[in-house]
Amino acid sequence: MKTERTTLKRLPERGSHEREAIDAILDEALLCHLGVVDGEGRPFVIPTIHARAGDVLYLHGSPASRALRTARDGGIDVCVTATLLDGLVLARSAFHHSMNYRSAVVYGRATKVEDPAEKVAALTALVEHVVAGRSEGCRPPDEQEVKGTLVLAVPLDEASAKVRTGAPLDDEADLGLPVWAGHVPLSIVAGEPVADAGVTEPWPGYELVRPAAGTG
Amino acid sequence: MKTERTTLKRLPERGSHEREAIDAILDEALLCHLGVVDGEGRPFVIPTIHARAGDVLYLHGSPASRALRTARDGGIDVCVTATLLDGLVLARSAFHHSMNYRSAVVYGRATKVEDPAEKVAALTALVEHVVAGRSEGCRPPDEQEVKGTLVLAVPLDEASAKVRTGAPLDDEADLGLPVWAGHVPLSIVAGEPVADAGVTEPWPGYELVRPAAGTG
Repeated sequence: MKTERTTLKRLPERGSHEREAIDAILDEALLCHLGVVDGEGRPFVIPTIHARAGDVLYLHGSPASRALRTARDGGIDVCVTATLLDGLVLARSAFHHSMNYRSAVVYGRATKVEDPAEKVAALTALVEHVVAGRSEGCRPPDEQEVKGTLVLAVPLDEASAKVRTGAPLDDEADLGLPVWAGHVPLSIVAGEPVADAGVTEPWPGYELVRPAAGTG
Repeated sequence: MKTERTTLKRLPERGSHEREAIDAILDEALLCHLGVVDGEGRPFVIPTIHARAGDVLYLHGSPASRALRTARDGGIDVCVTATLLDGLVLARSAFHHSMNYRSAVVYGRATKVEDPAEKVAALTALVEHVVAGRSEGCRPPDEQEVKGTLVLAVPLDEASAKVRTGAPLDDEADLGLPVWAGHVPLSIVAGEPVADAGVTEPWPGYELVRPAAGTG
């Protein structure tokens, strides 16, 4: 799992190659950023939804999606990065300002999932990733919807995690400066659910945002 | 500004080429995801901080950073994507589940900022981007810190915005299904500031998270 590419060159003490840490970040992040290389060798990054099932990360999209269409045959090199922003770090010096975050970076070749059963399982995982329990509370995908969705699988065998937590790290010489320094935790909160027109069913009470595992 | 690359192939009604929309997303997003192509032609995506100053997007990092070091001479093709997650969209069908979001995608050639005055201005903008007013509440970068930071500039002339808001868009045939459907707004909130050890100054009362411009 630790390859040349995932060997962190900078601040290696913030890196982690432990699958547990990587999985936790991927599972908590509601979305990820998918990077591919376009036909002219330029980078292209889009936000998208992901879901992990064991050792595989699933992505999906329309077969017409520019980012994914080149993956239809033979696969495509991707970099999938999921970032949880845990806080702002205000140092005594501008230079040492930072953010507290947890990020997972997955490299690999994304290949098209052809098996209909695996596709349905992946699509279910994608819904469950965002709202646990939701797949049983809505109409499952029919045959045409499954056919009409491109599902990609990325093996989780080349990945790394990076985490920053806690207080600023100021230079010794700055510690006496008369300025406020510290950190401010950030979190995502869900507001009141807004029912669509015509909905008479009550809100099912889903737990929407996973409790943050970070320390801010 | 609207080039072949930024012409949205899918759901063009969600796209916007208006600079005002792009600027608003870049200004509100606390971080972005920077995509580059590595030496072997593979994509590489990392979270980083950005700041917009007029028609230029600034990024920074250590000169040793793998993602940025190839930009030291001659520039590097980048794709910078900033995404604001505004809500979860729960449709009657699994297929139409979605998210409400605003994203800005900036393509361009990032070049190294050499002029020390522009570098200082960019570093100030990066601190101000995260916490407005903070650059005057901390020690500014000294000459060595300015020298030791790689600052990149990306022109904002090839960019696009994409926005999804509001209710799910279900198939007509699903509207009568006895399931809850709707959307749930999400937002980022700041917790109580945590002062670093030895800090005696009071919290300066910065406004930390920009009020969401989206409708959830």
